[in-house]
Order: sequence, then C-alpha cells, then structure tokens
Amino acid sequence: MSSIDTLNAQFRQMPPVLAMALNAIAWDGDVLRLQAPLAANVNDKGSAFGGSLAGAMTLAGWGLLTLKLAEAGLAAEVYVADSQLRYLVPLKADLVAEARLEAGTDWDGVLRTFRDRGRARVSVIARVEAGNGATAAELGGRFALIRSG
Amino acid sequence: MSSIDTLNAQFRQMPPVLAMALNAIAWDGDVLRLQAPLAANVNDKGSAFGGSLAGAMTLAGWGLLTLKLAEAGLAAEVYVADSQLRYLVPLKADLVAEARLEAGTDWDGVLRTFRDRGRARVSVIARVEAGNGATAAELGGRFALIRSG
Repeated sequence: MSSIDTLNAQFRQMPPVLAMALNAIAWDGDVLRLQAPLAANVNDKGSAFGGSLAGAMTLAGWGLLTLKLAEAGLAAEVYVADSQLRYLVPLKADLVAEARLEAGTDWDGVLRTFRDRGRARVSVIARVEAGNGATAAELGGRFALIRSG
Repeated sequence: MSSIDTLNAQFRQMPPVLAMALNAIAWDGDVLRLQAPLAANVNDKGSAFGGSLAGAMTLAGWGLLTLKLAEAGLAAEVYVADSQLRYLVPLKADLVAEARLEAGTDWDGVLRTFRDRGRARVSVIARVEAGNGATAAELGGRFALIRSG
C-alpha cells in the first residue's frame, strides 16, 4: 500500500473518524489534504459542525507528521499538545482540510531532533477551504512526536 | 420537554454529534455537563480522539449558551468564533465535558447586551475530566450570539 492508503486504513480504524467519512486525498511530501462529505458533518444550521472542522484540521496535522515519519522509516507516536482555532465563515460544502509545517520550521530540523532525542515538538498550520481561495477555519497546533516500538 | 431534553434532541439531529453518542446529563443554570462513551470516540491508541475532545468541549460551550438563551425566552443563533485547546493527559474512559462562563463574565451582562444590540460575544471555558479531579483537556472559546426569528 502507498503511504496515503496506510493513513486511510488508520483513519478507518478510529470510530469517530470513520463516522466523519474522512479520507486523505493528496500528499506531496509537504502538504496533506483530507476530504469529508458535508452530510456526515453537518450542524443544526446546515453548515459544517465546528467539532468536525476542528477534527479534520487536527487529523490533517496528525496525518502530516505520521506520514512524514513513516516515510523516513521512523517509528513514532504522534500526539496533539495544543491548538488555536478560528472559525471564519460558515461552510456549506464538503470539507477539504490541508496541513503543512508552520513557516520557519523545516523537516530536516524536525527529523534530526527526533533522531537525536527520540522526541520532538512540531508546529503545524491547517485550514479548511471555503471556495474561491477563502478560508472557512484555520488551526495552529503543536504536536509531540515520541519514539515507539 | 425540559431544556436539557430539548438540547439532547438538537444534538441527535446533528449526524456527527449523533455519531459521538453525546448527551447532556446535568444543567444547573451555570454549568452544563455532557457525556459520551469512549467506544464511539476512541483513537488508534485506545484513548479519546482529540477531535472528539474538541467537539465535546465546543458543544458544551454551545449548549451552555443555547440553554441559557432559551430559558430567558430569547431566540438566537450561537456560533463558535475561536478557541484555544490544551490536551493534557490521554483519557481512557468515557468523556465528561463541562462548560461555564469565563471568570469575570456574568449572565446579567451577557443577556443585557444581547437584548440591547441583538448580538453579543461571550467567553466560555470548558474541560474534560480525567478522573480524580484531573483535567484531560481544556478549552477557552469565544462564541457569537446573533438574534434570530
């Protein structure tokens, strides 16, 4: 299986993620994109539920780090430590969330720290698109990587 | 129906909240408590999924304001505007989330502003318990109240 198929298999093993019908759809080594249908993630106002937006962006960050570590051959557990979220406009379409490293953070430094110390802290940014290049919601989060196995 | 039954009926109409099996279990006019089973909200490590913790705390804040406005006879839409989350310890038990107004904010002031202007911003704090009085995760969030109907 490709990395992205492995990630989708992990997503489907988590009941709340299965319920969101969330899937990884693109991965270029720097940006991970996830998609989920609005129908499974709708609130009382016919727009995307805030908890689903938070979940999709958190999983995009978690998946970004999980994929990169796996491709580097490193066994690690990835935990979200904290996050800041802003909800900008209601989303009445399927969710597309993408995550990447925060500007100023580079993979070489992250992987070197992790190899040296068996752990690292990484800052990630994520957003959910609202169409026409606009942003429905955005997240800045810190994740902890801890050697496993 | 009591206010809490009405809130639970609203929760069950939202597919992602139904999937979390989340229920309001206590409301004393100041603090709202919600509960959800771990089985529906578990991650790949056998602990509560970060997105479910975020969703439960966001819904506790949303429900707190929705209940208070309904009991005051005020028709409003409640939106989460932003939030800050901290994940402190893994939770391997059912989720119990509670929300209340941020210290220094009082209901009289919130309801007066809403009645005068048809809108208000309210700061809420929420947490998920980890047993023995410890905290698994905490949230500070701002919500927007907008007159409806």
